[in-house]
Amino acid sequence: MTYGKIDELAINTIRTLAVDATFAANSGHPGAPMGMAPVAHVLFNKFMTFNPKNPDWPNRDRFVLSNCALMRAASCRAGESEMKLNLRGVMSWMKPCFSQLLRFSCVNFIIAGLFLTIPRSSAVNGHGCMLQYALLHLFGYALSMDDLKHFRQVDSITPGHPEAHDTPGIEVTTGPLGQGLSNAVGLAVAQAHTAAYFNKPGFDLINNYTYCFFGDGCAMEGIASEAASIAGHLQLGNLIAIYDDNHISIDGDIKCAFTEDVMARFEAYGWHTQWVQHGDTDLKGIEEAIAKAKEVKDKPSVIKLTTTIGFGSLLQGTGGVHGNALKADDIKQLKVKFGFDPEKTFVVPQEVYDLYHKHAAEGAAAEQEWNQLFEKYGSEYKELHDDFARRVTKALPEGWQNKLPTYKPTDPAVATRKLSESVLEAIYEVIPELVSGSADLTSSNNTRWKKAVDFQPPNLGIGNYAGRYMRYGVREHAMAAMMNGMSAYGTIIPAGGTFLNFVSYAAGAVRLSSLSHQRVIYVATHDSIGLGEDGPTHQPIETLAHFRALPNMMVWRPADGNETSAAYYMALTSKGTPSILALTRQNLPHLEGSTIEKAIKGGYVALEDKEANITLVSTGSEVSLCLEAVKTLKEKYNIKARVASLPCVEVFDAQSKEYRLSVIPDGIASMSVEVMSTLGWEKYSHEQFGLNRFGASGPYKDVYKKFEFTPEGIAKRAAATVEFYKDVKPLRSPINRAFLQLI
Amino acid sequence: MTYGKIDELAINTIRTLAVDATFAANSGHPGAPMGMAPVAHVLFNKFMTFNPKNPDWPNRDRFVLSNCALMRAASCRAGESEMKLNLRGVMSWMKPCFSQLLRFSCVNFIIAGLFLTIPRSSAVNGHGCMLQYALLHLFGYALSMDDLKHFRQVDSITPGHPEAHDTPGIEVTTGPLGQGLSNAVGLAVAQAHTAAYFNKPGFDLINNYTYCFFGDGCAMEGIASEAASIAGHLQLGNLIAIYDDNHISIDGDIKCAFTEDVMARFEAYGWHTQWVQHGDTDLKGIEEAIAKAKEVKDKPSVIKLTTTIGFGSLLQGTGGVHGNALKADDIKQLKVKFGFDPEKTFVVPQEVYDLYHKHAAEGAAAEQEWNQLFEKYGSEYKELHDDFARRVTKALPEGWQNKLPTYKPTDPAVATRKLSESVLEAIYEVIPELVSGSADLTSSNNTRWKKAVDFQPPNLGIGNYAGRYMRYGVREHAMAAMMNGMSAYGTIIPAGGTFLNFVSYAAGAVRLSSLSHQRVIYVATHDSIGLGEDGPTHQPIETLAHFRALPNMMVWRPADGNETSAAYYMALTSKGTPSILALTRQNLPHLEGSTIEKAIKGGYVALEDKEANITLVSTGSEVSLCLEAVKTLKEKYNIKARVASLPCVEVFDAQSKEYRLSVIPDGIASMSVEVMSTLGWEKYSHEQFGLNRFGASGPYKDVYKKFEFTPEGIAKRAAATVEFYKDVKPLRSPINRAFLQLI
Ligand SMILES: [Ca+2]
Ligand SMILES: [Ca+2]
Repeated sequence: MTYGKIDELAINTIRTLAVDATFAANSGHPGAPMGMAPVAHVLFNKFMTFNPKNPDWPNRDRFVLSNCALMRAASCRAGESEMKLNLRGVMSWMKPCFSQLLRFSCVNFIIAGLFLTIPRSSAVNGHGCMLQYALLHLFGYALSMDDLKHFRQVDSITPGHPEAHDTPGIEVTTGPLGQGLSNAVGLAVAQAHTAAYFNKPGFDLINNYTYCFFGDGCAMEGIASEAASIAGHLQLGNLIAIYDDNHISIDGDIKCAFTEDVMARFEAYGWHTQWVQHGDTDLKGIEEAIAKAKEVKDKPSVIKLTTTIGFGSLLQGTGGVHGNALKADDIKQLKVKFGFDPEKTFVVPQEVYDLYHKHAAEGAAAEQEWNQLFEKYGSEYKELHDDFARRVTKALPEGWQNKLPTYKPTDPAVATRKLSESVLEAIYEVIPELVSGSADLTSSNNTRWKKAVDFQPPNLGIGNYAGRYMRYGVREHAMAAMMNGMSAYGTIIPAGGTFLNFVSYAAGAVRLSSLSHQRVIYVATHDSIGLGEDGPTHQPIETLAHFRALPNMMVWRPADGNETSAAYYMALTSKGTPSILALTRQNLPHLEGSTIEKAIKGGYVALEDKEANITLVSTGSEVSLCLEAVKTLKEKYNIKARVASLPCVEVFDAQSKEYRLSVIPDGIASMSVEVMSTLGWEKYSHEQFGLNRFGASGPYKDVYKKFEFTPEGIAKRAAATVEFYKDVKPLRSPINRAFLQLI
Repeated sequence: MTYGKIDELAINTIRTLAVDATFAANSGHPGAPMGMAPVAHVLFNKFMTFNPKNPDWPNRDRFVLSNCALMRAASCRAGESEMKLNLRGVMSWMKPCFSQLLRFSCVNFIIAGLFLTIPRSSAVNGHGCMLQYALLHLFGYALSMDDLKHFRQVDSITPGHPEAHDTPGIEVTTGPLGQGLSNAVGLAVAQAHTAAYFNKPGFDLINNYTYCFFGDGCAMEGIASEAASIAGHLQLGNLIAIYDDNHISIDGDIKCAFTEDVMARFEAYGWHTQWVQHGDTDLKGIEEAIAKAKEVKDKPSVIKLTTTIGFGSLLQGTGGVHGNALKADDIKQLKVKFGFDPEKTFVVPQEVYDLYHKHAAEGAAAEQEWNQLFEKYGSEYKELHDDFARRVTKALPEGWQNKLPTYKPTDPAVATRKLSESVLEAIYEVIPELVSGSADLTSSNNTRWKKAVDFQPPNLGIGNYAGRYMRYGVREHAMAAMMNGMSAYGTIIPAGGTFLNFVSYAAGAVRLSSLSHQRVIYVATHDSIGLGEDGPTHQPIETLAHFRALPNMMVWRPADGNETSAAYYMALTSKGTPSILALTRQNLPHLEGSTIEKAIKGGYVALEDKEANITLVSTGSEVSLCLEAVKTLKEKYNIKARVASLPCVEVFDAQSKEYRLSVIPDGIASMSVEVMSTLGWEKYSHEQFGLNRFGASGPYKDVYKKFEFTPEGIAKRAAATVEFYKDVKPLRSPINRAFLQLI
């Protein structure tokens, strides 16, 4: 391939669009986009196969923008936070849920009876984002030039639906550093798995590549190191990363903090490495390096591309072009230098459109061909074909939910982490897209069904790429980000385990699961001081409060077997909402009053007493304790109590007010009981019994006793609560609010 | 040095103590301690200088146990969570605070008037911890054999005060993987800085080494990669890490997830690497490697030590000895094999005591000599001597607080991140132990005073080791853990900046700042949707709720200049409590009613009105909005309102009930206003106005308007709140509780 004027023109078009956009925004990151325009041009035009008219084509090549300035660009993918729970139960016994169908497609809230509706924002866009949008625009994705010019305004109709994951051509929500590269590893895992699972002789159905740009910022982040290490171990030959070696980060020259040999490090991880020294101009070198990387099938590849940040600017090669828009004079000289009219903005020469549209047409033809292949595949492998076709709709197989285990109160006490294992064991065959795993805690998290095959490179002799069990190693943060990528690929529902306390290590990526609406399941065992001997460094106190405060996250803390099944039901059917399942290490009895039907409402009455003086509101391991405390309260204090189990407050919040008041009624006091931070429980109770300090090490029963999480410890506090509220009239349930929240 | 029977005996004593302890505990991690006993013996006996009678001797060598099994061992350092705020104001205008002196030295709570006192737990210990305690015991630290045998019981009087940082001989709280190695980097930074700052010709006052054991688990964690990268960059010649290469992690053979070349990776970071192939037996090889590592002055060193996990057990070399105690039969054969009486437990031959006590005596002599040197130093460098002597007491210089800037309402509006910079600029000269820094966001975090010198290896030409400004790179998690280590060293108060949203990346280490009582300051700028254009990926929603739920953490969100100064006053004077300062990107006016004296109470009345119908409770950027809303409320709704500013709820909680009720009084409704998750605000208000969804990108004023964070938006909700509560009698302040929390 030789390169000529047209290529130069296309590259300079990208550069000037980036410059114009950041100037218009009066802020942003023009530098890296300007430096990376040549490789973007070569990659998108010569290598990547995609159809702008159908951004969801399953076998498209994936592109992830992870690097610093470009990455902040990609923050534009940020979206709304509406909870998208699937309350549309398909099981007959879930019919009562039909009426609860959530529709937060606009932001509703009520003020003293007045209903306001704010239209959904669509303008959650960064400036640099403009670059990626510019590329997408040039190729003919559904992004008009006018949209591009106005995308920064709050509530503007910018390209890309406010549900960010719908933005055509953008694969994953990045922005926070290191996430994109880790997402890319997840996308590559998903590709390798999907190919191994579905491809057949003559049907090379899935063979796409995943490309990723990353910079020094990403390279410094621990999450990216974790992801690069596991990618090397997994020999992901379909992953090609391009490292923008521009020597500049926000603090200026990277020699202030970053003098390691990045390529040597990637080699140590098992990557294939190359270096293109003249990344600003050597298009042929770039092409050859990518072509070579594609040929390396048993290793991920990284190409170090030495570029000049802000290429063409008077400030090129300095930190001055990293975080600030160029000055008007600088833009003028740059446009003249690039052969553009210095007086015009947002200019795209027709021949650039033509070149890019031609490539887009080739992509459309490739999809056409693929569709025919897939149809033929259907005639030979009907079951696999139908499975694949179903998966990409995010629908689960008909009747899968009938496999969910149910329990009677007479069944033996079991830890919810074991109950979680029973769910996985029961459903793994009917939900083939479920890919489980753990961050080196398999036997503690109970995340692996007995017949599971590990997802491993076949040459290691310990699994294969069709395997559905991931060994993430001790890499919680990368695990979470990889799961975001795996979910985004479209053919996998990832579940990954660690201790609840160490989900905090992954907080950066967990947040993006929520923001980008990924159906990811965090299996978070050892959920409280109930883990006992490991002590305070492992005992969560703040963790549930943290993730309950995170929008669009379901935090489940089931109390028994039926609630555990309910948690999985909701986690699996809520297509755009991730879940954290907080599970016990210790055994719990099955509750008298629990059913899946009740528990999928997020909260229900576990023990009713119409004459009760108090409602005990509780979750997980403390619900059965509360049921015991009811007896103590009656016997010792002559107080009647009822118990509400609230395994998931986010789902409970989505029920009708009438229902919620039936669970936590007016007229009597209420007290929450959860053996960790009380923060937030004031929303569901008048008083709170919890643990606003670190825990203690010891056998768990001793630890519970130490902090008075005993029937007596609960009862005396409940008695104090009843006494305290007896003079308050009217005594309203905390469910009643003067106005509703912005959610 | 030659090794003989006595060394073998000592090593096997350590091994059998570890075995006995984990057997007595019926759980734990005997494997790695058994494998690492030889190197521990050589290191502690032949290289490390320390005085067991004075574990605080400043120039002692530091040892950090970071690796997997040993590390979980070290989880025993977990401590209580009492808030140790220094409300003992030393400024005359802080006198009112004297009466507020907090004393949570036992866990107090009140139930309906009944006062209970639970003795402080001292048994927050893991099992494997026994190994490190065993070593300390052998050397003569204040740990009796009887204490060792009983250390696992809840509420037992185990060695080491429940305030974990007081446990003699243990330097940092580790447990969660990767933290220890990163703490060690921080300790090494602190050593290099302290040496460069205080050492003079003829006075090599500070020349200690930092040693760290780490394993595969740590090596996989991103935080450890970050820390190792910056350690290489910083050329920390005083840091020697020993990598326990035992091929085993919890999931079994590490080849499931970890096949990279760890030593090549460390070389890429700039470390000096060595390999001792027979780590179980080659004591001479171990000694030579450590000696060589000590000679390498311009690089951190790592020694890969190939060991057999569970050496001596029938299950040696397998995952079976990683997480479980050995069986009784196995222990018997092991003791016979090692020449110990199989019927006896917790045996220490006298000659082992003698050997270790001899080394301890040498350490005591070394301290003696150092003390003389330090005294002589005092006669030649009195100022430096006194500075050093003061620093180690954690006391600040007399009168420093008079430098804190104060503001009048007529001063121009300034962003609190800039006000934070003004504080640093004002105090850096009077608090020489303050070492600031940023995770590659210096110009955004405003963490660098103008004349700051970077902490850098001198040969890079961009700073020196006496420099007080850290360039952490884009490594938030390692930054936090390094700051924990720097604080633990004893001569530094570290402050480090990043965006508030990315403090979440560091959550694992931030939690340990709290648990281990480190005086660490997180300068967390861009604290809300007020950051504007960067959008939802960068706009914190759940972050403050998360860290407010974390015990022993002060979360400050100052509203203006005086509150910012107050936040620094409390952060710097609270010797055992870390702080997060959440600071705005946007400008804020100075409040009419703010003073440092008021703000250090954590909450105060910013605008009083004795006839008010409602209290608006707010923080940071929303306080001035509330003051505007008061006018709207009066004009449009004829409602009188008062405003309470609560810059730090943790400190506010520590005030007397009487005071708190004066801020949020009985009889009128209250509404919180904070532009992020409402979770937790129910504790201080009847209704909450916040943002329980992700934000939006755009100029910040537009974003505030979109979500109705305007005087009108606040006023109409306040009006709804007043209306809603008008029939409730008595209308109690939420400050009133039926019983107090466990803190
Ligand atoms: Ca860069
Ligand atoms: Ca290991």
